[in-house]
Amino acid sequence: MYEDRIRRVLEALEQMGLEQMIVSDPDSIWYLTGYYVHPFERLFALYLRRDGKHKFFLNKLFPVPQVDFEQIWFSDTDDYYAIMADNVDGTKPMGIDKDWAARFLLSLQNSHPGMKCVESSDCVDNARACKDEVEQNLMRASSAINDRVMLKVEAYIKEGMTEKQISEFIQAEYTAEGSDSLAFAPIVSFGAHAADPHHDPDGTTLKAGDCIVIDMGCRKDRYCSDMTRTYFCKSADPKYAAIHDLVREANEKAEAILKPGVKLCELDKIARDHIAAAGYGEYFTHRLGHFIGQTEHERGDVSGVSQIVAKPGMVFSVEPGVYLPGEFGVRIEDLVLVTEDGCERLNKVDKHWKTIG
Amino acid sequence: MYEDRIRRVLEALEQMGLEQMIVSDPDSIWYLTGYYVHPFERLFALYLRRDGKHKFFLNKLFPVPQVDFEQIWFSDTDDYYAIMADNVDGTKPMGIDKDWAARFLLSLQNSHPGMKCVESSDCVDNARACKDEVEQNLMRASSAINDRVMLKVEAYIKEGMTEKQISEFIQAEYTAEGSDSLAFAPIVSFGAHAADPHHDPDGTTLKAGDCIVIDMGCRKDRYCSDMTRTYFCKSADPKYAAIHDLVREANEKAEAILKPGVKLCELDKIARDHIAAAGYGEYFTHRLGHFIGQTEHERGDVSGVSQIVAKPGMVFSVEPGVYLPGEFGVRIEDLVLVTEDGCERLNKVDKHWKTIG
Repeated sequence: MYEDRIRRVLEALEQMGLEQMIVSDPDSIWYLTGYYVHPFERLFALYLRRDGKHKFFLNKLFPVPQVDFEQIWFSDTDDYYAIMADNVDGTKPMGIDKDWAARFLLSLQNSHPGMKCVESSDCVDNARACKDEVEQNLMRASSAINDRVMLKVEAYIKEGMTEKQISEFIQAEYTAEGSDSLAFAPIVSFGAHAADPHHDPDGTTLKAGDCIVIDMGCRKDRYCSDMTRTYFCKSADPKYAAIHDLVREANEKAEAILKPGVKLCELDKIARDHIAAAGYGEYFTHRLGHFIGQTEHERGDVSGVSQIVAKPGMVFSVEPGVYLPGEFGVRIEDLVLVTEDGCERLNKVDKHWKTIG
Repeated sequence: MYEDRIRRVLEALEQMGLEQMIVSDPDSIWYLTGYYVHPFERLFALYLRRDGKHKFFLNKLFPVPQVDFEQIWFSDTDDYYAIMADNVDGTKPMGIDKDWAARFLLSLQNSHPGMKCVESSDCVDNARACKDEVEQNLMRASSAINDRVMLKVEAYIKEGMTEKQISEFIQAEYTAEGSDSLAFAPIVSFGAHAADPHHDPDGTTLKAGDCIVIDMGCRKDRYCSDMTRTYFCKSADPKYAAIHDLVREANEKAEAILKPGVKLCELDKIARDHIAAAGYGEYFTHRLGHFIGQTEHERGDVSGVSQIVAKPGMVFSVEPGVYLPGEFGVRIEDLVLVTEDGCERLNKVDKHWKTIG
């Protein structure tokens, strides 16, 4: 599996005309090797070469990886800048990962003044954007936990509870369901709080008639889930229920046209047009979605300017929303996996509005 | 206060022969401006100039800072790479912060091929290493919380408890004492687990005769604490008690010689020599300490190769340890603040071995 992932990166490097690249994102290194280290301020890099003579730069404080690559070990007191410079090919352009720290890059440039350095993160990030079969199953498993916990939340919520209490319930249920951690802090918003898409749960209590936005996700075996559902407490104002239907339809319309070859800006457009046609366009204040995988937000954008073309294996969120300041908010979000001829929704919890509590 | 901090950075730039620098570390930007933003993947930078014409590069999603500098605003869909390039002086060398992401640096280099980029983090980091009076008081307050919680932990621990249970107790007590967050995840290690200096607390239960290593720190008003104490459950094996004494003496010897003018490698040496003389040198497997402030590990090293000379205001850890694989471990750590003629220990909890539980 890792060989296949590395092969995809090397092919992308070839298309960029590069012979070599330094991969420094720990999540990308895990993706390519199965070896995860959080290096703090230390040098940690996988040096990929088209000729297959990859090298792994490792600090003696790290455990030994089970990989076939040449391993270059150093300690905190070694001149690891020089060790790295001695171990790369300074005669050819070098691909560089997008977040590599300036101190490493400047030092490498000083050691090899003639070597052109080129940002080439897309070679790894585009590979990561298309999940392979193993990853697809991990994404499904993480979202299955999310579905189960959302159903528990539906049953748990009662009038008079606080946003914070529900947020704590979500965290406890994730643990009970075997997730490793939160993918992000849960958003629980009642009534007018829901008009802020990123509201932090507080001590506000739930009242009859309030809308309830729950946006939550966990991490299981490194892979993240992310889903939003919007409910009403005991009764729904007809105006707000109609906006809920509108947003759900926008979500469903985008999911319905998704298949390989579709540009992601078209998804954003069909959802946004549907909401705008009902007069709420200005209240849909964010992009339609974001890519997701090992982190909650991976590189890749589902917005009006996204030129990304859907490919099998891509996983991203579809999450239209309408936010009426001081009044009300609704968002409906699924994760979708692009398949050969359409898409698979990773979230199964019903999206229609209903009353709970 | 901020003007004084900026003045110190500009003086250091002058000494490096630089007219300008890009500061990108959000903690450094807070240190120099009082304005904190976590920019995620977005460009966020303070451009300092010796002529005083500083500029602040800001995303429209951020709040407006209360500073006198020129503010350069852009949005996610603007070409902020070009906006930045247009706003710097490409005719002179540019100082660069150590962790600035390669994608920003490479883009700036492409826009100004003749501009020499030089890592100049020390200009900011050396200023940050010497805490001013306001910061010293914040460091004291954070360590005072840490002392109080360590005493509570001493009283709380009982045979049969798990490492994880104690870790959770520590977190709850930090909250009760008014800290903002953990400085790092607490290390709680029983018996042979203590031989791993970075052991993650797990479900292991405490048994009579076990050593107990507690390494913990919180964050209060942005400033961190960090302390380690080692106890024994109910009884201490004389061999291990003697090693505990040895490590405590190493800690005390280093603290005793610390004053302005001392090279930090000498601190490491006096502690390491004391442990080596008793035959345990090879089991003291890490450096003596690290600098600390807004983050748990700030730039600055207390190791055998550290050429840093102690100056008033510096705060770092003194934390010798001995780790016997499969068997036992002990570490004793204080934070110390260098004063005009010696040092002030920020941790007051007694360091001698004792039995608890």
